[in-house]
Amino acid sequence: ARKGVPEVVYARGKSPEQAAGICAALLESAERVILSAPEPDHEAAVRAALPETPIRRAGRSLILGKGEPPRTGGRLGALSAGTSDLPVLDEALAVAREMGVETLAFNDVGVAGIHRLAEPLHRLRDFDPDCLIVAAGMEGALPSVVSGLVSVPVIGLPTSTGYGLGGDGTAAILGMLQTCSPGLSVVNVDNGVGAGATAALIANRAASARKLA
Amino acid sequence: ARKGVPEVVYARGKSPEQAAGICAALLESAERVILSAPEPDHEAAVRAALPETPIRRAGRSLILGKGEPPRTGGRLGALSAGTSDLPVLDEALAVAREMGVETLAFNDVGVAGIHRLAEPLHRLRDFDPDCLIVAAGMEGALPSVVSGLVSVPVIGLPTSTGYGLGGDGTAAILGMLQTCSPGLSVVNVDNGVGAGATAALIANRAASARKLA
Amino acid sequence: ARKGVPEVVYARGKSPEQAAGICAALLESAERVILSAPEPDHEAAVRAALPETPIRRAGRSLILGKGEPPRTGGRLGALSAGTSDLPVLDEALAVAREMGVETLAFNDVGVAGIHRLAEPLHRLRDFDPDCLIVAAGMEGALPSVVSGLVSVPVIGLPTSTGYGLGGDGTAAILGMLQTCSPGLSVVNVDNGVGAGATAALIANRAASARKLA
Amino acid sequence: ARKGVPEVVYARGKSPEQAAGICAALLESAERVILSAPEPDHEAAVRAALPETPIRRAGRSLILGKGEPPRTGGRLGALSAGTSDLPVLDEALAVAREMGVETLAFNDVGVAGIHRLAEPLHRLRDFDPDCLIVAAGMEGALPSVVSGLVSVPVIGLPTSTGYGLGGDGTAAILGMLQTCSPGLSVVNVDNGVGAGATAALIANRAASARKLA
Amino acid sequence: ARKGVPEVVYARGKSPEQAAGICAALLESAERVILSAPEPDHEAAVRAALPETPIRRAGRSLILGKGEPPRTGGRLGALSAGTSDLPVLDEALAVAREMGVETLAFNDVGVAGIHRLAEPLHRLRDFDPDCLIVAAGMEGALPSVVSGLVSVPVIGLPTSTGYGLGGDGTAAILGMLQTCSPGLSVVNVDNGVGAGATAALIANRAASARKLA
Amino acid sequence: ARKGVPEVVYARGKSPEQAAGICAALLESAERVILSAPEPDHEAAVRAALPETPIRRAGRSLILGKGEPPRTGGRLGALSAGTSDLPVLDEALAVAREMGVETLAFNDVGVAGIHRLAEPLHRLRDFDPDCLIVAAGMEGALPSVVSGLVSVPVIGLPTSTGYGLGGDGTAAILGMLQTCSPGLSVVNVDNGVGAGATAALIANRAASARKLA
Amino acid sequence: ARKGVPEVVYARGKSPEQAAGICAALLESAERVILSAPEPDHEAAVRAALPETPIRRAGRSLILGKGEPPRTGGRLGALSAGTSDLPVLDEALAVAREMGVETLAFNDVGVAGIHRLAEPLHRLRDFDPDCLIVAAGMEGALPSVVSGLVSVPVIGLPTSTGYGLGGDGTAAILGMLQTCSPGLSVVNVDNGVGAGATAALIANRAASARKLA
Amino acid sequence: ARKGVPEVVYARGKSPEQAAGICAALLESAERVILSAPEPDHEAAVRAALPETPIRRAGRSLILGKGEPPRTGGRLGALSAGTSDLPVLDEALAVAREMGVETLAFNDVGVAGIHRLAEPLHRLRDFDPDCLIVAAGMEGALPSVVSGLVSVPVIGLPTSTGYGLGGDGTAAILGMLQTCSPGLSVVNVDNGVGAGATAALIANRAASARKLA
Ligand SMILES: Nc1ncnc2c1ncn2[C@@H]1O[C@H](COP(=O)(O)O)[C@@H](O)[C@H]1O
Ligand SMILES: Nc1ncnc2c1ncn2[C@@H]1O[C@H](COP(=O)(O)O)[C@@H](O)[C@H]1O
Ligand SMILES: Nc1ncnc2c1ncn2[C@@H]1O[C@H](COP(=O)(O)O)[C@@H](O)[C@H]1O
Ligand SMILES: Nc1ncnc2c1ncn2[C@@H]1O[C@H](COP(=O)(O)O)[C@@H](O)[C@H]1O
Ligand SMILES: [Mg+2]
Ligand SMILES: [Mg+2]
Ligand SMILES: [Mg+2]
Ligand SMILES: [Mg+2]
Ligand SMILES: [Mg+2]
Ligand SMILES: [Mg+2]
Ligand SMILES: [Mg+2]
Ligand SMILES: [Mg+2]
Repeated sequence: ARKGVPEVVYARGKSPEQAAGICAALLESAERVILSAPEPDHEAAVRAALPETPIRRAGRSLILGKGEPPRTGGRLGALSAGTSDLPVLDEALAVAREMGVETLAFNDVGVAGIHRLAEPLHRLRDFDPDCLIVAAGMEGALPSVVSGLVSVPVIGLPTSTGYGLGGDGTAAILGMLQTCSPGLSVVNVDNGVGAGATAALIANRAASARKLA
Repeated sequence: ARKGVPEVVYARGKSPEQAAGICAALLESAERVILSAPEPDHEAAVRAALPETPIRRAGRSLILGKGEPPRTGGRLGALSAGTSDLPVLDEALAVAREMGVETLAFNDVGVAGIHRLAEPLHRLRDFDPDCLIVAAGMEGALPSVVSGLVSVPVIGLPTSTGYGLGGDGTAAILGMLQTCSPGLSVVNVDNGVGAGATAALIANRAASARKLA
Repeated sequence: ARKGVPEVVYARGKSPEQAAGICAALLESAERVILSAPEPDHEAAVRAALPETPIRRAGRSLILGKGEPPRTGGRLGALSAGTSDLPVLDEALAVAREMGVETLAFNDVGVAGIHRLAEPLHRLRDFDPDCLIVAAGMEGALPSVVSGLVSVPVIGLPTSTGYGLGGDGTAAILGMLQTCSPGLSVVNVDNGVGAGATAALIANRAASARKLA
Repeated sequence: ARKGVPEVVYARGKSPEQAAGICAALLESAERVILSAPEPDHEAAVRAALPETPIRRAGRSLILGKGEPPRTGGRLGALSAGTSDLPVLDEALAVAREMGVETLAFNDVGVAGIHRLAEPLHRLRDFDPDCLIVAAGMEGALPSVVSGLVSVPVIGLPTSTGYGLGGDGTAAILGMLQTCSPGLSVVNVDNGVGAGATAALIANRAASARKLA
Repeated sequence: ARKGVPEVVYARGKSPEQAAGICAALLESAERVILSAPEPDHEAAVRAALPETPIRRAGRSLILGKGEPPRTGGRLGALSAGTSDLPVLDEALAVAREMGVETLAFNDVGVAGIHRLAEPLHRLRDFDPDCLIVAAGMEGALPSVVSGLVSVPVIGLPTSTGYGLGGDGTAAILGMLQTCSPGLSVVNVDNGVGAGATAALIANRAASARKLA
Repeated sequence: ARKGVPEVVYARGKSPEQAAGICAALLESAERVILSAPEPDHEAAVRAALPETPIRRAGRSLILGKGEPPRTGGRLGALSAGTSDLPVLDEALAVAREMGVETLAFNDVGVAGIHRLAEPLHRLRDFDPDCLIVAAGMEGALPSVVSGLVSVPVIGLPTSTGYGLGGDGTAAILGMLQTCSPGLSVVNVDNGVGAGATAALIANRAASARKLA
Repeated sequence: ARKGVPEVVYARGKSPEQAAGICAALLESAERVILSAPEPDHEAAVRAALPETPIRRAGRSLILGKGEPPRTGGRLGALSAGTSDLPVLDEALAVAREMGVETLAFNDVGVAGIHRLAEPLHRLRDFDPDCLIVAAGMEGALPSVVSGLVSVPVIGLPTSTGYGLGGDGTAAILGMLQTCSPGLSVVNVDNGVGAGATAALIANRAASARKLA
Repeated sequence: ARKGVPEVVYARGKSPEQAAGICAALLESAERVILSAPEPDHEAAVRAALPETPIRRAGRSLILGKGEPPRTGGRLGALSAGTSDLPVLDEALAVAREMGVETLAFNDVGVAGIHRLAEPLHRLRDFDPDCLIVAAGMEGALPSVVSGLVSVPVIGLPTSTGYGLGGDGTAAILGMLQTCSPGLSVVNVDNGVGAGATAALIANRAASARKLA
């Protein structure tokens, strides 16, 4: 658990046996491990190898192990543009919660109906987050729009939702990288783990300053 | 002048002499010709070859010839996201006006400060346009946002304004092509002529229906 | 149903359960919903969740719900270059008909045998459409050719039919974006919904002008 | 002069001195040399180094040396879509003539006004060419259209004329590679030398068969 | 059968039923039809729909129908770099034979062991072909090498054999397009039909000249 | 000055007159304005238009106006891999200082001599920054390496330094986006303004928490 | 076995029957054959065709045949960044051992925890290899880092491990090609065979010099 | 001078003053410095700053400083496909000679006239090099061909010579990466320094083994 970041095992490119073996090994010293984007075969191998271990789903990830991390006082807000962005955003939020951060998320706040944004933004302002994650596929415009309306740093999380030219997430990430709203930084397409860890580091830096106060 | 579309000469890939010669030839039978995106050399050659012809600048185009086309009653609204989009948008508007269409445009309505959009949209609604052109570079999100808020067809006009990866207009056009707002269609990067002609065809179709009334 | 555009649910990136749930929810307030590009699993889930709802196929879409929208008087013509373009073009036409537009389409009018184009164009002129959709894969040249021969706006609808380099629709969309025929605008590869909605907005603008007459 | 192909020196990537030196060396054993795409500096260096040698311009090439090759009886037809394609097409024709082939070319036969094609095609049929070169930029559709209407092999010659996405010749070459008209093969963007040499080899193969008759 | 080119039905993008239906319809007026790149489902549907029709395999194509076309006297030579190129090259040869051309092919003549090239080239020279097709994947260098050694036109046929960056046929086609050997033209990746038809048109032009003799 | 972010005018895509005019207008209400990446022409126009205004250089930016912003207590550390990264990193630091943040930077800490990293990292730990910016071109690996060694959030700032394939900053930004070190987020190539603003928002969030203490 | 390189049969693009047939044919004259990246179908066909032949797995390859090559005295060191790189690196090592080279490899030495590198490097220095292979996916930085720390030539072996933009090995190979550490050369993504053969040629050149001593 | 690699200063991305300053600083402790790819401005600044220092040209590099490195006994052979490849190959050879290696090079050995290869290869075999560098632009096939004919490791050095699609060196490097000849590894486009250093490390490893003998 470097930097408070939880142990994450990426299922892609690993056999079910490798994935299960690595998870089991890590659970010897860590209380919980996140298995990111497992296929059904990976999940089956993990359940077989760790029959006693509680397993929760968090978007496209599984959280292996019991208990909860202590709360740090960090606060993370989140928005997603559509239903298809949920599995990746939920992974991000799970990683952040494993780092002790409290989260508040609103879904389905698309840029094509910009008025739908007012209410979630209002409630997020009451929550007073230290950082926001905004997930979007397609043209990936929501993070820019939001970053132009808030005063905290925003992490853009592009998702591989889209169609035709650029529809594998390329349009979304390019759009976020082209933002004209300073204050927005970006992780790779579908990188929920990276978004969650970065946002939690930001929130926890602020939280520990609050505690010292 | 096919379809009412004015004669357009593209300067790119032509020598100054070729460009001037083609313009002169077309002016034998057409009242006005649009020279799109001339370099200073092209402009000099045209002025030398056509010393009597009035020449007006319209964004990155020159309009050669005198007079004005008759008004058709078509109405075209336009928005641009930033100052850098003006030369291309102005070319589009000039083409549309050559097709007899009345235009109303607002500039510098960027997506990073979405509140700036309310006033121009309000005044455009009063104008009751048959079609909108929305020009944007960078992440090219403005056309999607606008298309989600209006009930007329929108032409997205991506411009080659941007930076880094995708900054040559690629991010902008991909973003517009990925739009989740049905009702938006797109022309190529910096294609002011195409945007103006398409929008004017749409407006003139509606206008001639109004006249028949 | 913003702007008269029907409710569309994109199956891609959604689980069968999500897709069925969203469709069911929308049908509470809308008479019909279009489910775009469902896999067999999606269709099965929808049929299970909505056993009473009539379901019609329209190209690669399903139309859920009964009845027909009132006719607006808008007219849309359509051409496709080959058999492979039909599922996407039919989706576009279904969306337009849901917006009250009358449609007339001709299929298999390829650019490699340009003479085959004469008869359909002749009959389309008699129909007097407000707008044309031209669908093509491969080199995507048909929309340019057609746009050079008609006087109404044309929506180019590239399809992901092709082979080798550029064969995923990239060559087709680039070809349409490079058109030398002003009056052609483009939607993304296989975006039947966008083509249909844009064309119907254009047609309905003209139709309502005709009615006011 | 392998295969009857004339000596060609590509100016790109060579200093003026290198280019002039190589041309001079080749002229020791060859009657004529083609210098492809020289910049003004290259041309100056060549003229200085070879003050006695007659130099003719052929599109974007220079032909150095005197005399004409003997006629083989091969016949090559050619079409270009626009003015901007001429420098490259003229280079192709010069290479073919250096290989003894008779040429007949028509310019400015764009795909956006397909009716303009009838007259040139008619006259080309009278000429009875062994092969056609069709040069086009933008969407590069003309070679496909032509190949669908004639019964001889067609060489597609894409040029770097275009705008926005794909406008460096990428759209044109992809379009030609996607052709649905069997009988069309392609050379690289602006490769006039390759197009001319290939077409002349085809024509000369037929011509020598005619002679044997 | 335009230009003597046989009827070809591309299976890709068509349902088995569509493919079978189109084949059956074409066989009403044509003696034979080529079905290119069918999946097992396509083949099954065709066999079910046409139980009486003889079906032969030719590389990745099926030839439906009986009999043989009359010989024209045209001669086509062919080389492939490796075993993986065979299905596509055999399709090309089948198309050419359907156009009456005699063929002679040598396989597995890779560029990494350039000495293996001598014997096949020797025997091809005895055959005296009017044209060569050279198929290669990977770096696609064989067509350039061969074109530098023979005096007839060469059609480069890139195949989608390769690995890593550029391994989908991109490296192969780019390599052929970059050739420094004038006399080589190219068709798209895996486009056996195009290569065969183009080569046969070239051969038949020469053959008919020989006959006139 | 939204969110405390200073007014930034991007010179690219603007004429010298436009740039100078916008700067002058902004200076009516803002104390200082940053002109990013001006060409010599832009700088001359600004100096002519604002003869009284103090102008300082900060990397590839100019800071127009007098005075300094009040210190917030936020702390930003920075590292660059090489000399070529300095103009962009210095722009980032200038933006952050305009937002009241204290900065400490070390240059020329390349990944090819990883031992050179120890000393700067040691001194940065003493400084106890709230956030780090790490600028790198070429393969862009330094931000990942650093992010694996520190416990604060890192902003990766890719620069357009490099050579050959990917050398325009593409390799650098892809490398940063592929990082296996959670806690790294990225801005676009050469986007010093975005990196500085994001880092300062992070630092100022922590600083204001410290103040509340 | 050219250059001492073992016979390698690439399974991709071959049918199981073709692969088995080629292996069987080669085993007539070679003692062992490497079958690279077989699918289960390929393996089954090979086992059926060669029931007597011993078959060992070596990463993603199979080694068919018995015995071991004689040792040359060449020494090859190897490092991989993660578990996912093992199948490709093990293929490389198997190829090198088939060429008589002794190997020593360390796995899971990622760049995000650079301290983990010290111990393996120390032990590799004791081994005194003639060459190193360093395999990495993601951002592919490990080879650059290692090459900056050792004094023997390094072969960078990028793997197709990664996510989002550039995650198919593109980011990894571009990163290695951009290296600022002279002494690093690269093979294509997942090209274990090429990496092993190149490294073994280097090692064997040194080994034969040592023997002559 | 890490690993015996000479100090190299890359002019790109540096101001003339920066380049000159870094060279001067390095010359305090190193006898010679290589300045890679200087523009005329860089060269002028260096000559002004170091009026006493002998300066030699080596391809596109300058060698600053006097004397010669001691010979190691390593031997490097080299081939280039064309005149345009010389500046980059000469840079590679200069770097290798700075590392004490003896070099023997042949130029203009193109793949389109494969017979020209025999004589240089013969003389290189007599020289008995430890390693070969093969430079080529265009389709980049020469390194593969050569690697198939020799038994030492080959470094492929792609150059940015070419035309049309892939002509910036992309086709050349992809071709080398796709090689079917094991034993070839690659550096980035125009990376003469990397090719020379890698080749010299290989040669010196063999040379020091010979010395120990
Ligand atoms: N109104 C919207 N504005 C912007 N993006 C949207 C909107 N609705 C959906 N999306 C994006 O479109 C993709 C599909 O959305 P959904 O169909 O809700 O799963 C997601 O990646 C969303 O980010
Ligand atoms: N004659 C043609 N001209 C242009 N495009 C065609 C032609 N025939 C087919 N196509 C295109 O080729 C693809 C396959 O056509 P089909 O085989 O008829 O489904 C479709 O995307 C068509 O757009
Ligand atoms: N710490 C690391 N530094 C660099 N690359 C890594 C690191 N860990 C894993 N990787 C790469 O990430 C990919 C997945 O690693 P693994 O999850 O261990 O299979 C592999 O391609 C590794 O090269
Ligand atoms: N015969 C040839 N075979 C392969 N490549 C060649 C050949 N001739 C020239 N080239 C390449 O073409 C480019 C231009 O060559 P040159 O015109 O000789 O400078 C160089 O990058 C060479 O690598
Ligand atoms: Mg979005
Ligand atoms: Mg914008
Ligand atoms: Mg088409
Ligand atoms: Mg054209
Ligand atoms: Mg090959
Ligand atoms: Mg770096
Ligand atoms: Mg790595
Ligand atoms: Mg070459």
